[in-house]
Amino acid sequence: MTSFAERKVLALSGGVGGAKLALGLSKILTPAQLTIVANTGDDFEHLGLPISPDLDTVMYTLAGRNNQEQGWGLADETWQAMEMLRNYAAPTWFQLGDKDIATHLVRRQMLAEGKTLSEVSAHLCRQLGVEHCLLPMSDDPVQTWVDTDAGELPFQTYFVGERCRPTARGFRFAGIATAQPQPGFMTRLADPQLSAIVICPSNPFVSVDPILQLAGVRAAMAQSAAPVIAVSPIVAGAAIKGPTAKMMAEAQMPVSALGVAEHYGARADGALLDGFVIDEADADQVQDIERLGIAVHATKTVMHSLQDRIDLARSTLEFALDLAARRKGG
Amino acid sequence: MTSFAERKVLALSGGVGGAKLALGLSKILTPAQLTIVANTGDDFEHLGLPISPDLDTVMYTLAGRNNQEQGWGLADETWQAMEMLRNYAAPTWFQLGDKDIATHLVRRQMLAEGKTLSEVSAHLCRQLGVEHCLLPMSDDPVQTWVDTDAGELPFQTYFVGERCRPTARGFRFAGIATAQPQPGFMTRLADPQLSAIVICPSNPFVSVDPILQLAGVRAAMAQSAAPVIAVSPIVAGAAIKGPTAKMMAEAQMPVSALGVAEHYGARADGALLDGFVIDEADADQVQDIERLGIAVHATKTVMHSLQDRIDLARSTLEFALDLAARRKGG
Repeated sequence: MTSFAERKVLALSGGVGGAKLALGLSKILTPAQLTIVANTGDDFEHLGLPISPDLDTVMYTLAGRNNQEQGWGLADETWQAMEMLRNYAAPTWFQLGDKDIATHLVRRQMLAEGKTLSEVSAHLCRQLGVEHCLLPMSDDPVQTWVDTDAGELPFQTYFVGERCRPTARGFRFAGIATAQPQPGFMTRLADPQLSAIVICPSNPFVSVDPILQLAGVRAAMAQSAAPVIAVSPIVAGAAIKGPTAKMMAEAQMPVSALGVAEHYGARADGALLDGFVIDEADADQVQDIERLGIAVHATKTVMHSLQDRIDLARSTLEFALDLAARRKGG
Repeated sequence: MTSFAERKVLALSGGVGGAKLALGLSKILTPAQLTIVANTGDDFEHLGLPISPDLDTVMYTLAGRNNQEQGWGLADETWQAMEMLRNYAAPTWFQLGDKDIATHLVRRQMLAEGKTLSEVSAHLCRQLGVEHCLLPMSDDPVQTWVDTDAGELPFQTYFVGERCRPTARGFRFAGIATAQPQPGFMTRLADPQLSAIVICPSNPFVSVDPILQLAGVRAAMAQSAAPVIAVSPIVAGAAIKGPTAKMMAEAQMPVSALGVAEHYGARADGALLDGFVIDEADADQVQDIERLGIAVHATKTVMHSLQDRIDLARSTLEFALDLAARRKGG
């Protein structure tokens, strides 16, 4: 079994699916080795509370406090505040658990005191016992808007309020042009010791693309000596979780691992990927993806158990090391 | 039994004790007859939430949703958010119940939308099924500061954080000079049909005095044809609830119903009261209080049951009608 000792890894993650792999990575890499950058493009304010869904999902997951069944939110959560909000005829389309509200109250308070989102996040993580470094992609606000056949909608309205029912025609990340990538994110991208950049199995359009669109991120990834590996969020033509498949279909893309690989593109072509991890169920797509100039590793990518998460993390890192060796060799 | 049909009553209230009498009044007077004005001098912001302790205590009580044992807060409340705040090392000295947080979130949201505190309150009351009119004393912020031997403290820090341990030397209501009394409050005070102004058994210093110090309130009370009646918050030398007795002792006042009567003073002397309702346990003070020029009614004022609340409300109103008849006669 390959040893990852001393090797540094940067993982880019959205919410639920990404958090699963991030957890797996955190079980085989030390805090000094692993940094996780979470999308904040779907952050929004609700009832005056600053909500960072992806950041919190990853944090709760790494803390071992996430709700295992629903993926997002906290285990043993209660919904008393929601019931009372309903009494008040206040908006209840976005679920706020009683414990989760405390996270947003503390975040709000610290932001009001002038702390950055990174500082808030570091504090929350520390208090929950998360030892690995979890960074928001940026301390500046970025807002995802979805262009739909029902008009342009704020992402959470589309995603939670409308349950992704409208047809998505495109995505706009307001503020992305001026948002600065989180400084530690860029430092790690530029680290010559970096051994792998792992794009977790998250929604390419609304979880990963906002991170990639931040100024300088794609260029830094292109310049990095580390291989860039994505794990497919599409398995056997369907998304494990969330609207990825629906969005691909609506964008007239093939709803397949190949479709995701085409979306990211090959680093050799000035695009993103050195390697792509697909599920063994999609092994028939290996050649088509390799034809794009992207190396492929087919393995079990559906993560039910903690061991599944660890196995996929290990398999992905081994693939990355293999690619790094090939790059050096080639 | 006296009928109160058509008679209009204005009640001034602080939190727990006042809310008990307010509830009693609400059971024998229609929404068209009774208006309750609650102190907002102890309102404050906590974790970014605008908290109105007295207003909410009265609202929850009138809605039949208050916690009967502790007096404040909601029945069947849970404390999951508090537990999580503790995890985050966030301030937990002020108890925020999960349901109660919803009240503050809605208030915050509506205030941010430009609604007045009165509008927010009316909405919350309506949604909780409170039919009687509950008004904040003012829509403008007033902050109570306590001058203590440990320095000047914000009221909630003194009251909840320090559990009233420091010796109080005085009280300052920041903003009171410019705060406008709630318009409906002044309209009702000026109503020639008003039959009684009832000062509930609340803390004279920090619950009632802020209301009285609002511009024009004392003058309007002095001009009203309605008798002004207070119910003593001190029974047998002790306060039923809260720091009233301790504050009186620290102010070198006699800790007795008489002491409270002296604090409010007689309307005949240009001060406040026509009548004072004391507990039958303090019947020995009747003559001393009457000597101040204040009529006295001794009855059972300790309210354990709902019937106790109704009985005291009825007894207080009968006393008021009797005084009104005497005023007309005299």
